[in-house]
Amino acid sequence: MIIVMQAGASEAELEHVVARVERLGLRPHVIVGTERTVVAVVGDERDAVSRGLETLPGVAAVLPILAPYKVASREVQAEPTVVRAGSLTVGGGRVGVIAGPCSVEDREQIVTTARAVKEAGATGLRGGAFKPRTSPYSFQGLKEQGLELLAEARAETGLAIVTEVVSPEDVPLVARFADVLQIGARNMQNYRLLEAAGRVQVPVLLKRGPAATVEELLLAAEYILDGGNRQVMLCERGIRTFESHTRFTLPLATVPWLHARTHLPVVVDPSHGTGHANLVESMAAAAVAAGADGLIVEVHPDPKAAASDGGQTLDVPAFGRMMDVCRRIAAAVGRHL
Amino acid sequence: MIIVMQAGASEAELEHVVARVERLGLRPHVIVGTERTVVAVVGDERDAVSRGLETLPGVAAVLPILAPYKVASREVQAEPTVVRAGSLTVGGGRVGVIAGPCSVEDREQIVTTARAVKEAGATGLRGGAFKPRTSPYSFQGLKEQGLELLAEARAETGLAIVTEVVSPEDVPLVARFADVLQIGARNMQNYRLLEAAGRVQVPVLLKRGPAATVEELLLAAEYILDGGNRQVMLCERGIRTFESHTRFTLPLATVPWLHARTHLPVVVDPSHGTGHANLVESMAAAAVAAGADGLIVEVHPDPKAAASDGGQTLDVPAFGRMMDVCRRIAAAVGRHL
Amino acid sequence: MIIVMQAGASEAELEHVVARVERLGLRPHVIVGTERTVVAVVGDERDAVSRGLETLPGVAAVLPILAPYKVASREVQAEPTVVRAGSLTVGGGRVGVIAGPCSVEDREQIVTTARAVKEAGATGLRGGAFKPRTSPYSFQGLKEQGLELLAEARAETGLAIVTEVVSPEDVPLVARFADVLQIGARNMQNYRLLEAAGRVQVPVLLKRGPAATVEELLLAAEYILDGGNRQVMLCERGIRTFESHTRFTLPLATVPWLHARTHLPVVVDPSHGTGHANLVESMAAAAVAAGADGLIVEVHPDPKAAASDGGQTLDVPAFGRMMDVCRRIAAAVGRHL
Amino acid sequence: MIIVMQAGASEAELEHVVARVERLGLRPHVIVGTERTVVAVVGDERDAVSRGLETLPGVAAVLPILAPYKVASREVQAEPTVVRAGSLTVGGGRVGVIAGPCSVEDREQIVTTARAVKEAGATGLRGGAFKPRTSPYSFQGLKEQGLELLAEARAETGLAIVTEVVSPEDVPLVARFADVLQIGARNMQNYRLLEAAGRVQVPVLLKRGPAATVEELLLAAEYILDGGNRQVMLCERGIRTFESHTRFTLPLATVPWLHARTHLPVVVDPSHGTGHANLVESMAAAAVAAGADGLIVEVHPDPKAAASDGGQTLDVPAFGRMMDVCRRIAAAVGRHL
Repeated sequence: MIIVMQAGASEAELEHVVARVERLGLRPHVIVGTERTVVAVVGDERDAVSRGLETLPGVAAVLPILAPYKVASREVQAEPTVVRAGSLTVGGGRVGVIAGPCSVEDREQIVTTARAVKEAGATGLRGGAFKPRTSPYSFQGLKEQGLELLAEARAETGLAIVTEVVSPEDVPLVARFADVLQIGARNMQNYRLLEAAGRVQVPVLLKRGPAATVEELLLAAEYILDGGNRQVMLCERGIRTFESHTRFTLPLATVPWLHARTHLPVVVDPSHGTGHANLVESMAAAAVAAGADGLIVEVHPDPKAAASDGGQTLDVPAFGRMMDVCRRIAAAVGRHL
Repeated sequence: MIIVMQAGASEAELEHVVARVERLGLRPHVIVGTERTVVAVVGDERDAVSRGLETLPGVAAVLPILAPYKVASREVQAEPTVVRAGSLTVGGGRVGVIAGPCSVEDREQIVTTARAVKEAGATGLRGGAFKPRTSPYSFQGLKEQGLELLAEARAETGLAIVTEVVSPEDVPLVARFADVLQIGARNMQNYRLLEAAGRVQVPVLLKRGPAATVEELLLAAEYILDGGNRQVMLCERGIRTFESHTRFTLPLATVPWLHARTHLPVVVDPSHGTGHANLVESMAAAAVAAGADGLIVEVHPDPKAAASDGGQTLDVPAFGRMMDVCRRIAAAVGRHL
Repeated sequence: MIIVMQAGASEAELEHVVARVERLGLRPHVIVGTERTVVAVVGDERDAVSRGLETLPGVAAVLPILAPYKVASREVQAEPTVVRAGSLTVGGGRVGVIAGPCSVEDREQIVTTARAVKEAGATGLRGGAFKPRTSPYSFQGLKEQGLELLAEARAETGLAIVTEVVSPEDVPLVARFADVLQIGARNMQNYRLLEAAGRVQVPVLLKRGPAATVEELLLAAEYILDGGNRQVMLCERGIRTFESHTRFTLPLATVPWLHARTHLPVVVDPSHGTGHANLVESMAAAAVAAGADGLIVEVHPDPKAAASDGGQTLDVPAFGRMMDVCRRIAAAVGRHL
Repeated sequence: MIIVMQAGASEAELEHVVARVERLGLRPHVIVGTERTVVAVVGDERDAVSRGLETLPGVAAVLPILAPYKVASREVQAEPTVVRAGSLTVGGGRVGVIAGPCSVEDREQIVTTARAVKEAGATGLRGGAFKPRTSPYSFQGLKEQGLELLAEARAETGLAIVTEVVSPEDVPLVARFADVLQIGARNMQNYRLLEAAGRVQVPVLLKRGPAATVEELLLAAEYILDGGNRQVMLCERGIRTFESHTRFTLPLATVPWLHARTHLPVVVDPSHGTGHANLVESMAAAAVAAGADGLIVEVHPDPKAAASDGGQTLDVPAFGRMMDVCRRIAAAVGRHL
């Protein structure tokens, strides 16, 4: 890290800083500039930054240098990770498309949707059995019964099942039914849940929290990787900004930025990322053009009757049109759905 | 809710909307304007908004009218809630001050701090035993041993203990030791945890998530209230914005806004809200002036040696100065610490 | 607009609101609901919202209904506007690409760049002669001499010139040299400048301010359109959010959202929108996939030596690669560069 | 500045960086760490950062060290600046209160308001003659006639006049009537206007743009100071964030942060900062508690009839109550109105 001294810092203050750095087991290099003195610190600083150096007298700022994540880093593994879960492949030139309803509602709904999205080219089926909802008065999901219906849909179509888990104690149950565990945006920093997901060998789709930085997303992935589960997909689903014409703001520059720093594949959710069905196709196409390794999209046979998230859900014909465009875009960038 | 039709919507589209509203058990009123037609909908709309009305052909927008929270609302209980937990009173003209270290580190540290903050006028002791940390490589807390040390500090000083719980299965354990359960910003939408906190009769300090709207904060409180626990304090601790000179942006207008809408008391955290020790006193003073019912502040006998959050932690003399200022401000607005 | 009364509003308060609405020349419809009463107001409300209705006793909220922009609206002109300026066409299936350096530095630099970007397929040449800079100590541009150099580059290559104007009194001068007047993000709400641009018949590229909503962007365009200049291009160049790994956050959902509401073409600036050269190609590709009618990109023969914005500037080979990808993407969505 | 090399950067890349730094006239210090090499650069770097160092091969990041503002800095002038303009004093223990309507509407309105706010203790009168409005269809102010009415109000009450100037060519005119030139948030980066304000010797109230960082605010002030006008007040009036329950988010930590870095006084605008009259008193009180040197508040004899901004405007009795609270708070922090 770099410790920047204040313009008028005294010699004694500088010595105090140097001594403190040495006590942390790190090596200080003092550089006297024309206007300021800085202390460059060499060694593994990863947690030292928070140890109060910036409150020492005479210190103006502390600038970290090392990225705080390790196992997720391209510097540790240059080769991109390809996640495979049954019919679903994400990464390695393959754009995996996960589609389905926000919530599993009944057998008819989930099986019909599974057949339709498979026909249009999806390789994974999404559907919520455990639903975290902002209001306690909203529909909370069919829970275990929903998992069983998803398993039936897989039996009928062969599609890999992607479904959310919201609590560490549910991980074994959901892992028994699902091909991919989804950890939702609200739970991105639910560390017990991340640790539990790190202890199973089922791939994980980790969604970015709406106020999480990309570094925090990588550190959340690090909890899972560090636990021993290396099959992690990162998912950009939009951030909270001042914009109110979309439900969230979908920052697609996340995709190439992450690709430069991590070997983990990156999936984009244009449904939550926009919140409006009529923006989904354009943003799915843009995501593939930006290099996304996968898409996760809400599709329902009758969005107007959906139990949740109807406003951002495609119907089957609209999903088919989206797939056609994405297929052509993928080909234009040397990849395929 | 109000359904705004597009400028060119057809008669058939309007009829379709009206029929859909009726099928939801609500009453539509059609109002034909000079440029647009709107449908005003009467009845309890609380979950209907998400039922896909905005995707109907001809619909331009759906505007909700009712606040989605109920039990937290001043319309349900006009009288302010006063939370009492041992030595700590929050609300009713009393500004409760909860102070202490980010993490419990050892007996010496927590007991010394407890004595010092009590002497300066604090009425609650904070200290983390279970620490949610962004990086898996950071210190995660002493866990149950930390709770025992907090209990010792209470035995020595009589201060009420405020400590975080991060997982539903820990609620009974933490509730055995703590006078107030803290639910942290990262867990504000961990609904299992909120439900578990709703099942005990220990007061809860619920922190606002850094990307949560105030409505979402109230809905999270609603999970606890709806479970039967009515002793809930809301805590503003800063939001994520483009500002980077502070750790978070502390929006104090939350305090009077919440007071106008909910009977629950509002606590402010100027330590996380700014991230810099030298900004804490000013923002604590500002919070009291804005009407806060409580403060929660990080204090450590030696911030530079703290295991976490050193940069935003006050030492004991600085905390004493902060208390002096806040005492005078409270008097100026007809309240007392 | 819709006026929502408070739950406990009195009959007298309601009558007062109704009277006030009538005095504004609008027609109120009172609708008594189960929990609330609302007053739906019919008529042209465009400026009435700010007339203090929300401060009337008993009023809980005022919700606008009509979009505040008119001439920019698709409801006024369904047909998309195609902007043509010399060699440059933006809209109507044609993706115009404007490329060049941040600042005009000297004859050699601008002519070399113009030749290179033309060869790679650009149809417009950008280059700043008047540079608004955050710091008074930064390079401010060559001013009129820069305009002359741009004209020379046009004489050599035939490329249409796009250059910024920062002050109303410069509009006639810049309009004499430029094919397109650029109004920068910092000046999006410099109304005198917008009015001046409305009085000439040179096409305008209007950049979105980093904190401007899309409605505010349309209203800023409305100033130009209302002045009589109908050749306006809107430009998304990124917004200020909490993200710090990119210079701004580039929200591409703006493109389809604007297309649904306005007939004006939409250009995307992936250089300012990301701030990093290595993210530009991906985001240019994504913009075309999302339906952008144009791109504006910073290109310099030697970015490392550029007088400004070097970190986000492509060199000529990188620009060539970007063009290849964008050409294929455009074809995939039925359009061409 | 500090140049951080990538983990795998080659010796040749390092040498290239070192050579480039030397060519910029700066001195590089190479420090070889356990995981990374960094180059600490000594000398006046202020504009070099943008010169493309971060695009050199092998460079991971470039971290600036020096603050980019100079004249505004406390390091240049330790003593706080006190701004005096007729009846108005801002700074030096005195909290100046500027109050009045959003727009000057007619003689009666402005003189009545001036008398009322003076009686309640205001020392400055605000009132817009030139109004920048988001929509071209909104009221744009009385212009020169408004200035004359303001001068009449001053003649009647002795209050210093604070009024906005929106264009460089209007500066001499407005400076003839006004005691303080206000530069509004939309114009914070209108550099021609800042330069024009730097050429007169009338104090300036410079408002922070809603997406401007505090560093950008200081750099905008630097334009005025650098022009020779040293009587500059900074004004925090709220930023754009995801919060929608207030018009802007008012980040009061700006006040102590600025006080630590600049000698310029800091004024807070709780009217625009919240957008709701019922939040103004609390936030005015909080601003004074946080150390604000001044307040600027919208007051109108009949807010409901105001031509603009009615929703956030206090009536005279509410302003009187606000003043009472602020007077007590100021006393509590050793200052006075």
